[in-house]
Amino acid sequence: MAQTFEEISAADFFYRNRDIAGFTNPARAVFSSMRELVENALDAADIYSIPPDIYIRLSQEDEAELDEVAVYTLRIEDNGSGIPPRHIPSAFGQVLFGSKYKLKQARGTFGLGGTMAILYGQITTHKPVYVASSTGTSKIYKYKLMIDIQRNRPLILDRKIQINKEKWHGTIVEFCLEGDYFRAMPKILEYLKQTALVTPYANITFIDPKGRLYKFTRVTTKMPPPPKETLPHPYGVDVETIQRLIRITPCRNMLDFMKTHFHRIGENIAHHFLEFAGISEKKNPKKLKPHEIVRLVRMIKRFKGFLPPDASCLSPLGEELLKAGILKELKPEFTAVFQRKPSTYSGHPFIVETAIAYGGDVPKDDFPVYRFANRIPLLYDEASDVSVKVIRYINWRRYKVLPDMPIAILVHVCSTKVPYKTVGKEFIADRPEMKREILNGIREVARQLQRFLTKREHVEKERRRLSVFSKYLPKIARFSTELAGKEKTPDIKKLLRTVRKLEEEKK
Amino acid sequence: MAQTFEEISAADFFYRNRDIAGFTNPARAVFSSMRELVENALDAADIYSIPPDIYIRLSQEDEAELDEVAVYTLRIEDNGSGIPPRHIPSAFGQVLFGSKYKLKQARGTFGLGGTMAILYGQITTHKPVYVASSTGTSKIYKYKLMIDIQRNRPLILDRKIQINKEKWHGTIVEFCLEGDYFRAMPKILEYLKQTALVTPYANITFIDPKGRLYKFTRVTTKMPPPPKETLPHPYGVDVETIQRLIRITPCRNMLDFMKTHFHRIGENIAHHFLEFAGISEKKNPKKLKPHEIVRLVRMIKRFKGFLPPDASCLSPLGEELLKAGILKELKPEFTAVFQRKPSTYSGHPFIVETAIAYGGDVPKDDFPVYRFANRIPLLYDEASDVSVKVIRYINWRRYKVLPDMPIAILVHVCSTKVPYKTVGKEFIADRPEMKREILNGIREVARQLQRFLTKREHVEKERRRLSVFSKYLPKIARFSTELAGKEKTPDIKKLLRTVRKLEEEKK
Repeated sequence: MAQTFEEISAADFFYRNRDIAGFTNPARAVFSSMRELVENALDAADIYSIPPDIYIRLSQEDEAELDEVAVYTLRIEDNGSGIPPRHIPSAFGQVLFGSKYKLKQARGTFGLGGTMAILYGQITTHKPVYVASSTGTSKIYKYKLMIDIQRNRPLILDRKIQINKEKWHGTIVEFCLEGDYFRAMPKILEYLKQTALVTPYANITFIDPKGRLYKFTRVTTKMPPPPKETLPHPYGVDVETIQRLIRITPCRNMLDFMKTHFHRIGENIAHHFLEFAGISEKKNPKKLKPHEIVRLVRMIKRFKGFLPPDASCLSPLGEELLKAGILKELKPEFTAVFQRKPSTYSGHPFIVETAIAYGGDVPKDDFPVYRFANRIPLLYDEASDVSVKVIRYINWRRYKVLPDMPIAILVHVCSTKVPYKTVGKEFIADRPEMKREILNGIREVARQLQRFLTKREHVEKERRRLSVFSKYLPKIARFSTELAGKEKTPDIKKLLRTVRKLEEEKK
Repeated sequence: MAQTFEEISAADFFYRNRDIAGFTNPARAVFSSMRELVENALDAADIYSIPPDIYIRLSQEDEAELDEVAVYTLRIEDNGSGIPPRHIPSAFGQVLFGSKYKLKQARGTFGLGGTMAILYGQITTHKPVYVASSTGTSKIYKYKLMIDIQRNRPLILDRKIQINKEKWHGTIVEFCLEGDYFRAMPKILEYLKQTALVTPYANITFIDPKGRLYKFTRVTTKMPPPPKETLPHPYGVDVETIQRLIRITPCRNMLDFMKTHFHRIGENIAHHFLEFAGISEKKNPKKLKPHEIVRLVRMIKRFKGFLPPDASCLSPLGEELLKAGILKELKPEFTAVFQRKPSTYSGHPFIVETAIAYGGDVPKDDFPVYRFANRIPLLYDEASDVSVKVIRYINWRRYKVLPDMPIAILVHVCSTKVPYKTVGKEFIADRPEMKREILNGIREVARQLQRFLTKREHVEKERRRLSVFSKYLPKIARFSTELAGKEKTPDIKKLLRTVRKLEEEKK
């Protein structure tokens, strides 16, 4: 039997293995398509700190039965930065092409999701995608595209230019796909709700195939500062990184090289490091031999003098916005939010934010966990996620939390690189550094909840005690009056006030 | 802030996201490297039904401390089919290149793992890989390669041809990588043990960095029949598949087209289907318009007359070999194995094999689950796997199984496409069809275990009853003899035999 060898394109690889990118079945596909495009839209608005207005419409194209797979048209509009016209075809018609291959916090990271949605639409309906985009110039560019999957290249079917009088900026994407909205609906609505929770500065409008309108209105126009791009941290580099830097560096000596291309290396640290590594400061980086590059990487890993990554490039939500989001979506009786100090894993900075909510619209029994990574809600494979493992590990009785209490926990991890375990971004891997931060973050809000519950318990006890007083004191007063043969019962109101006052002082 | 767009190669994508391919940290990397290359070696031996001889050597290159990351050389030799010389560079120096992009059961599926191992070695040690291979011709080809990650292309540093007097066939791969063997050791040994269990016809030799020899010797040379390549089943096709077939088909009419390119469509079914779909049998497939292709796919999904996929292309292990493997590696007191009838999901045939083992070398308390897919042991992310979910769902008390019993369960799924959730092949997704087959398979072996346990309980009870008889009967006999004033006690042996016999008849 002869073996035949072949090369396949990246698009073909993900076409064949679309399950791993979250396109497992018609229900999941409609969820993933919407999600990927909403996240691109939000990222596009973040770049210029524009409070996002996202419009999503899913309409049914054929007359399928309610519980059947049907053809839908998905349209997503945003008011974000727009895409430069020459990049539009590749951005939507090619996998592994994008603007996010940088050390910068972003919702998208793989350069895959948007094109996968369109690819899925194409393989199920054989129809092109329509894209209109403007960066706010005098023109709007409109494309009709398909994907050449075997070559991983866009096919441009049509291209139009329109005058942009209003200087509109943003992107509109519309395409057909086979899906199963009615099976996907609960997850889609949950996704939008959680997105609204973590993006309280966004307007999100969704019109579903039955024409129902779901509107998530912003409660603030305050946005977290946009994430910034950063240089690679020395602890995260490998031989390949160094080689790529050497190829492009304008630096003529190692001192400049170290100072120019790495995160938080200044004159002083560069000097100390090169001395430690026994490398001449004057050495030309382009003249490093392979074994010297390997040695350089090894010495970098051994040197203890580098500063930890600076998290100012990250854009956590902040306690205020997080609280606003929770109050808006869960209307809890009590909530506590907490932002941990920045930490790092393998040279990547990250920040963990946690929150706990009690009562209000929080469901009982469920103990829901809202997981977010770079402001994306994660809805699948909960059991494998690091946060859920941490929550299971905590002894909740210590915090006076009982199994049937209406409590929700929220964990947000933001990083220049979120350690997802899957291309479908379902859950976060179990890194020890992240585990520790999440644990401490949850403990902090759990303690605040405990104080609230203790206080409430106390108030409740006090209320009961006072109600006993106010029930029996009048009787005792009347009885004593009769016993004493007097006419006028003493004023017990004063007495009751004293008891109450005493209690208040104790607190 | 200007956005910069860029395209990255598939190799660059997996380099940046090597976590998702199983190269998370130095311990995991050494495990994954060995695993990927062992699986390629076993696949290469399967092709020609050669009982595999696999030799693995991991040696430490530098003088690192025991608990530190060190540089290792990994060498893997097999006696498999070998790789045709012109394909050697791409097979080891390019991701998404391989011989496994077919509808055929194989250990490897992504065309990724082997090259990822070499890529990981390169980015940590900057050293080339050595490959020697022959398909049994008069020549052995030797290559020294590196990977151009940014272009996803092999770089050939050296190439030699050697005379192959012995007509040796097979492949030898040797490269350096940074790793942490001592942290990886438990998983590596477990991996080899489970591989030996599911491949009882293989010789596997492993020499670890301390020079310790682990040898897994074959117990049989009988091999399961090699898997066969199959055509796509109609229920699994989409618009893209049909288009690709149309592009390459030599058929001039739809009747031939349906008969030639699909699994289990003969004259009769093709005729019925085309009638059902309202497509002329004489229509030239190359003249189908886009909307007709979409309609064709839709009608294929609606037609009820296709035969289920034929599982004869699959190569399950078989009950006999599975039993041999279990007896060899676990030496249990009792074992039951079962092969379910073939089933299908989304047009892919699959077969589930289950086994249960009791006692012997099976550890207590742990309730270990051995998971296999296409004869690969799956060792990570157990909690997310479909088999583990099924096992948790079963009420084990019904089968007389108690928590502290020494019981192991084995599940083997083989398919032309295993629904892995991750590129690292850690666990199988939760498909309802697969869940049902696994559940029924485990129930079957659990019932056999139950019969064994019941019988053993019974035998135990009987043994106790007889021991009571044999203890008191002599005394009663002596006492009665004395009472009767006789001298000779009656022969109770006969009586005991009767009781025993009666019991045996009852069974």
